[in-house]
Amino acid sequence: MTDIHASPRTVPIPRVPEVAAELQRLIDTRARQASAYGPAFTTLWDAGAANLIGGKLVRPRLLLAAFDALADESPTDAAERDAAVRIAAAVEVLHYSFLLHDDVLDGDLLRRGRPNLIGAILNSRASEQAPTTQKDLHWARSNGILLGDLLLSMAHQTFAREPLPEDQRVRLLDLLDHAVTESVVGELLDIGLADGALPAELTTVLEMTRLKTAAYTFELPLRAAAILAGARGRVETAVGDLGRHLGVAFQLQDDLLSMFGNPAEHGKDAYSDLREGKETATIAYARLTGAWPRIAPLFGTGQRLSDADGVLVRELLRECGAEQFTHSLIDDQLRACFELLSSADARIPASLTPIIDDLVDALEERTS
Amino acid sequence: MTDIHASPRTVPIPRVPEVAAELQRLIDTRARQASAYGPAFTTLWDAGAANLIGGKLVRPRLLLAAFDALADESPTDAAERDAAVRIAAAVEVLHYSFLLHDDVLDGDLLRRGRPNLIGAILNSRASEQAPTTQKDLHWARSNGILLGDLLLSMAHQTFAREPLPEDQRVRLLDLLDHAVTESVVGELLDIGLADGALPAELTTVLEMTRLKTAAYTFELPLRAAAILAGARGRVETAVGDLGRHLGVAFQLQDDLLSMFGNPAEHGKDAYSDLREGKETATIAYARLTGAWPRIAPLFGTGQRLSDADGVLVRELLRECGAEQFTHSLIDDQLRACFELLSSADARIPASLTPIIDDLVDALEERTS
Repeated sequence: MTDIHASPRTVPIPRVPEVAAELQRLIDTRARQASAYGPAFTTLWDAGAANLIGGKLVRPRLLLAAFDALADESPTDAAERDAAVRIAAAVEVLHYSFLLHDDVLDGDLLRRGRPNLIGAILNSRASEQAPTTQKDLHWARSNGILLGDLLLSMAHQTFAREPLPEDQRVRLLDLLDHAVTESVVGELLDIGLADGALPAELTTVLEMTRLKTAAYTFELPLRAAAILAGARGRVETAVGDLGRHLGVAFQLQDDLLSMFGNPAEHGKDAYSDLREGKETATIAYARLTGAWPRIAPLFGTGQRLSDADGVLVRELLRECGAEQFTHSLIDDQLRACFELLSSADARIPASLTPIIDDLVDALEERTS
Repeated sequence: MTDIHASPRTVPIPRVPEVAAELQRLIDTRARQASAYGPAFTTLWDAGAANLIGGKLVRPRLLLAAFDALADESPTDAAERDAAVRIAAAVEVLHYSFLLHDDVLDGDLLRRGRPNLIGAILNSRASEQAPTTQKDLHWARSNGILLGDLLLSMAHQTFAREPLPEDQRVRLLDLLDHAVTESVVGELLDIGLADGALPAELTTVLEMTRLKTAAYTFELPLRAAAILAGARGRVETAVGDLGRHLGVAFQLQDDLLSMFGNPAEHGKDAYSDLREGKETATIAYARLTGAWPRIAPLFGTGQRLSDADGVLVRELLRECGAEQFTHSLIDDQLRACFELLSSADARIPASLTPIIDDLVDALEERTS
């Protein structure tokens, strides 16, 4: 399994300093609490806070942009926007809690080339003793699990405390429950595919893509925005559908870029997905073709895969139609988006169209 | 680190069939949802449900017994008792989520001699292929982390949705936040001691004992009962203090029984705590005495510790006064309980006295 909680690499959505400020407020409050529990917890909290505050805030930005667009149609007051800012911050906290457990599950010490929390905890002990032992690693990973638990709880606390009218509060809690469940199942499928506990079938790979990324990266922020802006249930459903299609499209494209894109642009090892045997839609399609017997012996072979092997597999994936197949899946998702946007039945507010158009444009530019 | 989420071995508190029924209702609702996500999630949910429903429900029993006692003093209605049943079930769900992550952190496959969730997931795959691989183990542990996340979220959802007056709801959320934070820090200290990341000092061991067990096994149920029964803030604080003292006493006694008790009664390997090098108050005291140089070479030596070594260490721990020291710590905690119970200032309702007396009696019988 790999980092498929990837954020869209370019996000044409305004920055949200008010969410960053809200996150800082949460962090400061907790830091004061943490100091009462001694140095181990303070070190953990400080390392976590540094990572939490350093994110690109893609999900909060999407949430607030959608909220502001929807609020244009049904006027909201300052208190309602403050609530949206707090929920947007909670969505980022939720995201980071997933990342923490994802890194433990994957055994990663880096994220985007910098030490993740586990790496930071290891480094904080490195000055005291060397070399790194199994116990050091166990300690660092345990820190990751426990901070993930704390942040998962904090995200729920924010949703639970929001002083909204009862029906809005319950809708938000339903949405949070849905997003957590789908993310958990998505991660389960991802790991099951990587560990060989589940057969590497296209339907499972696509279901994993939808659940692990689309559900909470796009569907959750868009639906939360609809609820907070006072939109009706059918509008919430429609923007959620929109989010799912967009999210799947972004993830499929991320997989394509990792496989066929320019490493200088995406910043990853050109063949890392091949080396670790990542089960993507492209690979699932290739398994069904005559090219697979030539790909299989090279797939998931780690550092034994030479660059020449990588070039060969890439060529085979092109020739057998797997790359084209994934492009067609992306087109299907975008077509579904446009149908929703233009459908009178779906009732997607017109004010949301520019945001979705910008996202689709960004996505299409990335394929070129 | 070890299972120090241990429940008191004898609990003189009535059984609570209504909590078991509420847990079954939660499980059935989720099982219907799970079936929509395919066999991997269904298998996980079913294995988790079997363990969740099989617990002794110590914490829910304490919560409801305290609620019923307190409700005698300030009349409550049926709806309020239903709320107490739901919160009691949520406390059990929270407990099981902690156990799941505890087992992952400890690398355990058994709990109370039977396969835990990780063991059950391994067994569910054993029929398909043998022998167990590293990937099988990774898959099973990942199941444990993910189900723990889901149940931690579910516990919060129950607290968040309870239709109570706003101030009661917020007090319950504050209490949940406090219990989660203290449990996380307690687990962190436990693992830090076991991994040698934290110095094995008596103050750290006692802080770990208080945070990891007392905070959510005794303090959480008693304070939740006070809030749900409409008791004032100072009563909630006092019963919380009572719970903390009782919880620390029970945990210290559990450690003593594991070290000096009759294995036929407690059901564990007579020297398991010595073999794994568990940092207890008894050990922390022994470290400060002249006996330690003779104990240290045998402590934490795993299966290399012979039974004769075990007998020797036990004798040394007795002779150096470490056993007696821990007994005196237990006495301190019980004295603090009795002072609270008899203090007019503390305002502990008289109706609660029989429950606390029964618990203390049970604890004292265990030392004999």
